[in-house]
Amino acid sequence: MKIYDVTVPISKDMVVYPGDPPITIQRKQTIGKNGAQCNLSRYSFGSHSGTHIDPPFHFIENGITVDKIPLELLLGRARVVEITAACIDEAALEEFDFTPDARVLFKTRNSYLWSQHKFVEDFVYITPGAARVLVNNGIKVVGIDYLSVEKFGAEEPETHKILLGAGTIIIEGLDLREVEPADYDMVCLPWNIKDGDGAPARDILKQ
Amino acid sequence: MKIYDVTVPISKDMVVYPGDPPITIQRKQTIGKNGAQCNLSRYSFGSHSGTHIDPPFHFIENGITVDKIPLELLLGRARVVEITAACIDEAALEEFDFTPDARVLFKTRNSYLWSQHKFVEDFVYITPGAARVLVNNGIKVVGIDYLSVEKFGAEEPETHKILLGAGTIIIEGLDLREVEPADYDMVCLPWNIKDGDGAPARDILKQ
Repeated sequence: MKIYDVTVPISKDMVVYPGDPPITIQRKQTIGKNGAQCNLSRYSFGSHSGTHIDPPFHFIENGITVDKIPLELLLGRARVVEITAACIDEAALEEFDFTPDARVLFKTRNSYLWSQHKFVEDFVYITPGAARVLVNNGIKVVGIDYLSVEKFGAEEPETHKILLGAGTIIIEGLDLREVEPADYDMVCLPWNIKDGDGAPARDILKQ
Repeated sequence: MKIYDVTVPISKDMVVYPGDPPITIQRKQTIGKNGAQCNLSRYSFGSHSGTHIDPPFHFIENGITVDKIPLELLLGRARVVEITAACIDEAALEEFDFTPDARVLFKTRNSYLWSQHKFVEDFVYITPGAARVLVNNGIKVVGIDYLSVEKFGAEEPETHKILLGAGTIIIEGLDLREVEPADYDMVCLPWNIKDGDGAPARDILKQ
């Protein structure tokens, strides 16, 4: 069995969504300095940094928080679908039959943006129309390989609201460069933050 | 299949190890306030908060960091062993044959300390002698159900150094209240922090 780690490593240099809190990593103790016996740090970051989960509560006032997501939703068969178009719209989805799927991860050219040190606004997003198709097909988990499913600068967060409003869980910030389109056994575990509107997650695909 | 989440939920009220950075959770955006369309927060915490991983680098200068832990080590059969003694010493381990095991999680009265709102110094720890027994038995992952494997106030962090020095990964801060002593299929995924001396983890046991 091969394990693919589709999680972006967290570092202070990594890209965050514009307006989100910065990522800071401060070493508080270093072995041998000032008598310290161990290395110990303080981490600070926004709830939607790196590879992370959007629970419904991110955009839906009475939606469930990240700690309330049934873990079964995030464990099991996941389908990686490659989209080469500039956005994921209804036309881009036409060639796929999602009938047997509950979890779909979109691999796009976004994955290659992780090698850039600046946020790129022109990322591949999911249109509201495509979000409706996914929900209507019973998709419960949607993953994408950059920091939002929404078009950058969209006036209304329609895609988020359609997906999260239907109870679909969003995984943002995946790195799918190493992964071929296929079915995998996914294990995606978010940090268990009480009442959290989002949480970093570690996501692995097994095949 | 039943899934046991043996992770402690993270909240600003949770207990941290004395001297560690506090946990702060700040809501930065709230739906409908100041024109915000979503809920978004900033989290800040020490690298050894809640349920977390100690990689060798925590106490060993040239040890591997948390992002370098082979995930295979943290995935697979794990044995939950119940210890009723006040510490885990060589005598407490005598009744067990660890020959077939690579991952051992100790369930002790510690698990019940999570219901207390103050740090308890008198927790069940692993003695250096017992740490040597575990290493000599080829145990690669050792878990415990409070915030340290080391006796509180120990002059030297011998237990940590014996385990981590042998490359054994430590999981601290488990909550094993709901779990019976038995073998489980474990999935423990730490947050992927570049060069991290520790990281929160989500740990589930399947049976």
